[in-house]
Amino acid sequence: MSVIPNVLAERYASAAMKSIWSAEGRIVLEREFWIAVMKAQKELGLDIPAEAIEAYEKVKDQVDVDAINARERITRHDVKARIEEFCDLAGCEHIHKGMTSRDLTENVEQLQVWRAMQVIRDKAVAVLVRLSNLSEQWKDVTLAARTHNVAAQTSTMGKRVAMFGEEIVHGFGAWVSQMDRYAVRGLKGAVGTQLDQLSLFGKNAETVAALEEKVCSHLGIPAKWTNVGQVYPRSLDFAVVSGLVELTAGCASFTKTLRLMAGHELATEGFAKGQTGSSAMPHKMNARSCERVNGFHIILKGYLAMIAGITGDQWNEGDVSCSVVRRCVLPDSFFAADGLLETFLTILDQMGVYAAVVDAELRRYLPFLLTTTILMAAVKRGIGRETAHEVIKEHAVAVSNDLRAGTISQNDLLDRLAGDDRLGIGRSELQSIFDENANDTGMASEQVAVFRGMVSEIVGRFPAGAGYVPGAIL
Amino acid sequence: MSVIPNVLAERYASAAMKSIWSAEGRIVLEREFWIAVMKAQKELGLDIPAEAIEAYEKVKDQVDVDAINARERITRHDVKARIEEFCDLAGCEHIHKGMTSRDLTENVEQLQVWRAMQVIRDKAVAVLVRLSNLSEQWKDVTLAARTHNVAAQTSTMGKRVAMFGEEIVHGFGAWVSQMDRYAVRGLKGAVGTQLDQLSLFGKNAETVAALEEKVCSHLGIPAKWTNVGQVYPRSLDFAVVSGLVELTAGCASFTKTLRLMAGHELATEGFAKGQTGSSAMPHKMNARSCERVNGFHIILKGYLAMIAGITGDQWNEGDVSCSVVRRCVLPDSFFAADGLLETFLTILDQMGVYAAVVDAELRRYLPFLLTTTILMAAVKRGIGRETAHEVIKEHAVAVSNDLRAGTISQNDLLDRLAGDDRLGIGRSELQSIFDENANDTGMASEQVAVFRGMVSEIVGRFPAGAGYVPGAIL
Amino acid sequence: MSVIPNVLAERYASAAMKSIWSAEGRIVLEREFWIAVMKAQKELGLDIPAEAIEAYEKVKDQVDVDAINARERITRHDVKARIEEFCDLAGCEHIHKGMTSRDLTENVEQLQVWRAMQVIRDKAVAVLVRLSNLSEQWKDVTLAARTHNVAAQTSTMGKRVAMFGEEIVHGFGAWVSQMDRYAVRGLKGAVGTQLDQLSLFGKNAETVAALEEKVCSHLGIPAKWTNVGQVYPRSLDFAVVSGLVELTAGCASFTKTLRLMAGHELATEGFAKGQTGSSAMPHKMNARSCERVNGFHIILKGYLAMIAGITGDQWNEGDVSCSVVRRCVLPDSFFAADGLLETFLTILDQMGVYAAVVDAELRRYLPFLLTTTILMAAVKRGIGRETAHEVIKEHAVAVSNDLRAGTISQNDLLDRLAGDDRLGIGRSELQSIFDENANDTGMASEQVAVFRGMVSEIVGRFPAGAGYVPGAIL
Amino acid sequence: MSVIPNVLAERYASAAMKSIWSAEGRIVLEREFWIAVMKAQKELGLDIPAEAIEAYEKVKDQVDVDAINARERITRHDVKARIEEFCDLAGCEHIHKGMTSRDLTENVEQLQVWRAMQVIRDKAVAVLVRLSNLSEQWKDVTLAARTHNVAAQTSTMGKRVAMFGEEIVHGFGAWVSQMDRYAVRGLKGAVGTQLDQLSLFGKNAETVAALEEKVCSHLGIPAKWTNVGQVYPRSLDFAVVSGLVELTAGCASFTKTLRLMAGHELATEGFAKGQTGSSAMPHKMNARSCERVNGFHIILKGYLAMIAGITGDQWNEGDVSCSVVRRCVLPDSFFAADGLLETFLTILDQMGVYAAVVDAELRRYLPFLLTTTILMAAVKRGIGRETAHEVIKEHAVAVSNDLRAGTISQNDLLDRLAGDDRLGIGRSELQSIFDENANDTGMASEQVAVFRGMVSEIVGRFPAGAGYVPGAIL
Repeated sequence: MSVIPNVLAERYASAAMKSIWSAEGRIVLEREFWIAVMKAQKELGLDIPAEAIEAYEKVKDQVDVDAINARERITRHDVKARIEEFCDLAGCEHIHKGMTSRDLTENVEQLQVWRAMQVIRDKAVAVLVRLSNLSEQWKDVTLAARTHNVAAQTSTMGKRVAMFGEEIVHGFGAWVSQMDRYAVRGLKGAVGTQLDQLSLFGKNAETVAALEEKVCSHLGIPAKWTNVGQVYPRSLDFAVVSGLVELTAGCASFTKTLRLMAGHELATEGFAKGQTGSSAMPHKMNARSCERVNGFHIILKGYLAMIAGITGDQWNEGDVSCSVVRRCVLPDSFFAADGLLETFLTILDQMGVYAAVVDAELRRYLPFLLTTTILMAAVKRGIGRETAHEVIKEHAVAVSNDLRAGTISQNDLLDRLAGDDRLGIGRSELQSIFDENANDTGMASEQVAVFRGMVSEIVGRFPAGAGYVPGAIL
Repeated sequence: MSVIPNVLAERYASAAMKSIWSAEGRIVLEREFWIAVMKAQKELGLDIPAEAIEAYEKVKDQVDVDAINARERITRHDVKARIEEFCDLAGCEHIHKGMTSRDLTENVEQLQVWRAMQVIRDKAVAVLVRLSNLSEQWKDVTLAARTHNVAAQTSTMGKRVAMFGEEIVHGFGAWVSQMDRYAVRGLKGAVGTQLDQLSLFGKNAETVAALEEKVCSHLGIPAKWTNVGQVYPRSLDFAVVSGLVELTAGCASFTKTLRLMAGHELATEGFAKGQTGSSAMPHKMNARSCERVNGFHIILKGYLAMIAGITGDQWNEGDVSCSVVRRCVLPDSFFAADGLLETFLTILDQMGVYAAVVDAELRRYLPFLLTTTILMAAVKRGIGRETAHEVIKEHAVAVSNDLRAGTISQNDLLDRLAGDDRLGIGRSELQSIFDENANDTGMASEQVAVFRGMVSEIVGRFPAGAGYVPGAIL
Repeated sequence: MSVIPNVLAERYASAAMKSIWSAEGRIVLEREFWIAVMKAQKELGLDIPAEAIEAYEKVKDQVDVDAINARERITRHDVKARIEEFCDLAGCEHIHKGMTSRDLTENVEQLQVWRAMQVIRDKAVAVLVRLSNLSEQWKDVTLAARTHNVAAQTSTMGKRVAMFGEEIVHGFGAWVSQMDRYAVRGLKGAVGTQLDQLSLFGKNAETVAALEEKVCSHLGIPAKWTNVGQVYPRSLDFAVVSGLVELTAGCASFTKTLRLMAGHELATEGFAKGQTGSSAMPHKMNARSCERVNGFHIILKGYLAMIAGITGDQWNEGDVSCSVVRRCVLPDSFFAADGLLETFLTILDQMGVYAAVVDAELRRYLPFLLTTTILMAAVKRGIGRETAHEVIKEHAVAVSNDLRAGTISQNDLLDRLAGDDRLGIGRSELQSIFDENANDTGMASEQVAVFRGMVSEIVGRFPAGAGYVPGAIL
Repeated sequence: MSVIPNVLAERYASAAMKSIWSAEGRIVLEREFWIAVMKAQKELGLDIPAEAIEAYEKVKDQVDVDAINARERITRHDVKARIEEFCDLAGCEHIHKGMTSRDLTENVEQLQVWRAMQVIRDKAVAVLVRLSNLSEQWKDVTLAARTHNVAAQTSTMGKRVAMFGEEIVHGFGAWVSQMDRYAVRGLKGAVGTQLDQLSLFGKNAETVAALEEKVCSHLGIPAKWTNVGQVYPRSLDFAVVSGLVELTAGCASFTKTLRLMAGHELATEGFAKGQTGSSAMPHKMNARSCERVNGFHIILKGYLAMIAGITGDQWNEGDVSCSVVRRCVLPDSFFAADGLLETFLTILDQMGVYAAVVDAELRRYLPFLLTTTILMAAVKRGIGRETAHEVIKEHAVAVSNDLRAGTISQNDLLDRLAGDDRLGIGRSELQSIFDENANDTGMASEQVAVFRGMVSEIVGRFPAGAGYVPGAIL
């Protein structure tokens, strides 16, 4: 039986994300970390032969995962297995001095998280750039905006894009702010007091502080914990996964709306690539990538529940009931988020709007959509808001029911309103209101411009992601 | 970069569980399903050459996952890729007649779930057998039972085992009951009306019913849906994962308690195997397998949240926003449950109780633990319950505080109570109460016997699991 | 400041459900429980004056919640406050003998749960009766069934109702099965060994067993735990809330689909009551009750997460970290489920289908919907499935795109297929296929009949709920 | 039957928090908001009589919740009911001009959230101040720090406090950062385009912008959305609840650890207030407030699951499936967090450490705890790390087993190590190591000082909360 693959990684995630979490990648990170510690220890006076460090460096990329796994089955301790393998390869025993397992694993796992956070940040920028472009492209496509899934008022497709886009901008702000505060555990020893490094360095606190400084600068993570136990607080992991849920919420709302639009033939997720039908039912153009994005978001929320389960549950200086949970959640939530963003980028690159269908729908509903404006007009001329509402509602409901019953085929709401004395607005006046307002989408264009400004500002700060092109998706 | 493995499968799950969910295993199940459908269709009159069926049968075990994946990257449709591969291998095109993708995938995935449910059921029986034995083995080990994590009254270690055991018995009842009601979707066509099979068979409803009967009997699942859409209701998946959480809850409570006991040196998870210390701190005997069981239970709750996310969310006759979620949850929740049970079985085989420590702790607390009995005695002789409670509490708290302050080293509660006229019970009488009740664990033994009877009954119905021995764990 | 009400109870739940969980109701249940215990204790030989029991009985309905709360603020112990109040009212001290707080609260809370389960069960029957009727009423309303939110094949509205109905039937089976297994804790004492009752009754195990039997028969719950600690296992609470999620999942899928249908004007949740528009936008007929049902289902899943948080987390014989969680989850999850069912029943009583719109939509899509049938026809005459699919897809996509672009206004797929030699099916033959199949909804009618049979069987077993009429909803 | 109270509000939350979410409080906020809008509209040229505004102002505090509820039962629309009540009270109809329901409710609910966030922020400061003081108070109390719930190395009680404290500092940083980014929806109209206000003001975009500016400044929330639909994105609510989980995680870990410590009699949550025993078992000093904090944290995670359920689920410009969820989650998650903090503050004010017990425990484990230091010593003198570990482990395990079996009563590890040639460290040297290191808690003191500095900085920025004293808790 072949290895059971991680389905999120192998079906959906990008190579960049996979390499961060691969067994080989992690082992190399660990070895580099050990070497960085050794070098720092040597610089600060510990007697470690230069040849030993060289020996380790020479073999650090010789990663044999099977051999390490075989060792672990004997030692029943994963870090010990990896120490033995590395030492045997190098032919000496100088790594891991004054360190406990967690001095290694916590820092290396945080490095993986940190690098994965950067990947996600840059892809979010790529998403925003596309949304900005699409909001501009469709800023004049007037549509019947919906609330309660029912046509409500006019807006534009560009504004709709910007609406979901601004949600992502907000989540992006939270993400970046979190990265600024992301803190690494450092070399704190078994219970967080740095006792073992102090022992190694003759109880010299300054040396130990300098050691940690060097090691953290190797990691490149901006902030650092001072008071920890064996582990850093798991609420930090929680915050990361929560941030993924928040950052991608706007994507999920966008794709849910696109699924609804596809159901009305207003839009398609696959216009650009030459939409093809489904296997069993050739005519069908399914929003399956959009459905997948929604699926990924549900997955992320599940991982959030998992990581929440180990949050606020630290016993004393820490234990490892969190271990198997983090083995699962940390990579998999990033794979899911990465797969979500890859899929979403592809949708944004290939989606299209059926302008003719959008317009036909709008025409059908326009007299209804303008009732609020007519209501305003009535209110302005002194009719009580509630009274005006009553009259308009009566006719609107009647027209709607007649249309649905098939007894009329044209929306004749304006005629009916003109004929009702309680409202007291003539037919020609109603027509004027209609003509003036049919394409009135309020501040939609100005709002789109504001959104585009926000994105420009972000691209200015994080230009790396702007040009990112997603890989091919299944 | 090598394949990223599914960590739950590769680190923790048993071979039996992995084979159910492996790519190869699934593909063979699918091909067998297609062949079963073809055979049934032929029997019921469809013109399918016997040689074609033979050709498919001959190649059904030739599974080349990479080749299929390569096809999927072209078709962007996983089922289509697998149809093409199988047909090319067999050299003909006769499978999948009148079927949609979901006619294949729903049924095969349910078959995977069904088989995995059987594995879990049998391992739960193995757990119960061990708990029954341990409850007997320790039925006379009197201990200081705790509530609020504070010693409360005497009980026995056997009763404690039976207590968690009976929780598992209850969860087992729910699991078995659910298996009895587990229903398969069957061959229902694109939207559930069986239209395409009807088309194939000249609109003959009886033939189509007979076809479905034959196919379902191939699957061996007890119940069957009648009214479904493209998919069976996802609340069925939800119920399965929820059942896993419920079934394993008693295991998680047991291991949490064992972690607490290990902290007091009352018990260890690794007595039988020769407990060894941790890597960094040699003296430490960590309840790491227990911690892992708790971790697995948190993971299961996370998968429950995921699957809940697609429950009650069916659009019309179904869509595939659930697809990626189920790809993740269905195997992984079973891997987690399987790993939990493998780990828990190992703990049960290797754990031990330190009788001397248990007894020492009991001695320390006994005068306190008997306060309820003394209270009863006072009440029986007519002192108001609240008054007696007040007096006893006053002295008990004082003794406890003195012990904690180190001002006394022996629990002298009986002396103090004897000296208090409000209670009116003499010292010798108190001593009699003490002597009579020190080892009184109430109905603990009888309760253990009842538990053992429950387990016997279960083993009688499901003997297969009773002798199961877990594999080696990491 | 007035009391902050429980919003789920006060806005949405029925009087029956509220009375179960009200402070007054609970206190009366407790007092009745204490009296039942006293009577049983007296019958079994304990010296309790008949007048005392009478005194308690006389005042048991004199519930002054404020007075009890005031006592609790002094004692900082809720049960003690309620003991004192009841004893002061009765003028004696005879209740709660040999009992701990949990002997009272666990059993009474289980009684509340049990009664609430009955309410839910009966409302579920009421739901099924309505669904059965609606499935019959609409069994000939042919519609364009959708998958991926895109028209896929013909079905009927009756079948769609039955599809969601059968999901509820399945959840109902789980619910009833769970009720059969629901077990009460009984009078087990501080750590579950029944020590204190044994003390009261001279260590006579049979008397104590008889006592528990009498008390449990007062409660009327079918099953009973033997091995428990201070508390019954919280996985039992988990199973109850999980059962609520499962039972109502079909309701949530139904209302989600109705929201989609309302968006296409195919149906409305408010036909029967005279649909009225929204306040701000008079023409709008919003599926707000359906939205509310979906909201309730999300709430239930949240309570499931809460209760899962205390599942598998028992420390030793139990503690009270679960206390505040259960105070919140137990009533509130039942209020939410009750509100969901009340709302859903109202929808079922008032909803309507716009047959003319349903038919118009069907006409638009029919040529597409029949492509699977045409594909079958092609396969039957020997054309390879994949080839036929390719040809049909090509034309179907082209027609669809032309319709969306507005370049054609009629679906001319049959003409285009007739003109393609690769398929080799003539126009008249295609028209025959069309005419024969336009109203072919496969086994839809037979399936509806099967569903109605299931409901009849349930009504036969649980007739009480069948006639239930929901209260007015907001 | 009296009103069913919100148990979180009425049992646990503070008056300040309750007043924010009370029905009366909310209605006044709404009315003030309407008045603010009217005033701004008048200033910007709308014809609203000054007397009308005065009339509204005069009656704004006349809140009759029952009357409003009665209206809602007729209108089936909560906002409409409140409009009618306010207008009837004032005797005119000038509020709500150009507004939809959501223009009112979204903004007012955000104002409630915003004020509740401030309350929580200030209580978190109060928590940090106490933790800072306790970390100082106990900075010299050496204890046996635990990992895997087993004694591992020495640390101090002060450091342990600081460890949980720094987790809260980190969560506090996230909370404050989120407050800085918290954005209000503003007056955006039915679908977010501000169409209706534009209609009112002759399509003058600048006037409408000025109007929104005035209204937002009334609210006092720092940031503002530009592109929204009918509702602001629900991921904002998600972020708030997630922030509550993160902020309180350190509290929950602290109380979980205190429950463990209480089980070992190392500490108590109730020292200051004169710890009293439990009702049924007088000697027991239960960490029930700590258990409650853990319960609250589980509740918060459940509300997080609820709010996650409406995140990434926006249909088009918004619907109200989120309505009932938010009615429940927004107040209740703040009540739970408030109750958690009130309880936690009380614990911090009343808890105590039993120094004699802490010391006795330390003495028992010290020889074990120093094995890492001995290991270091061995490594420094050239013995391979793995070899030294093997030897030490062998003896440590043996001593531990002998102690647990009761065959020795004193920890004689140093003697045994001295007698083993493989290690080659003499008895006196081992004693020196022991004496030197017995009280060596590494950098614990320095770390505590750093923590205290962090808290000082926070108090400097947010002095309001520093002096907060919690109310009495149940």
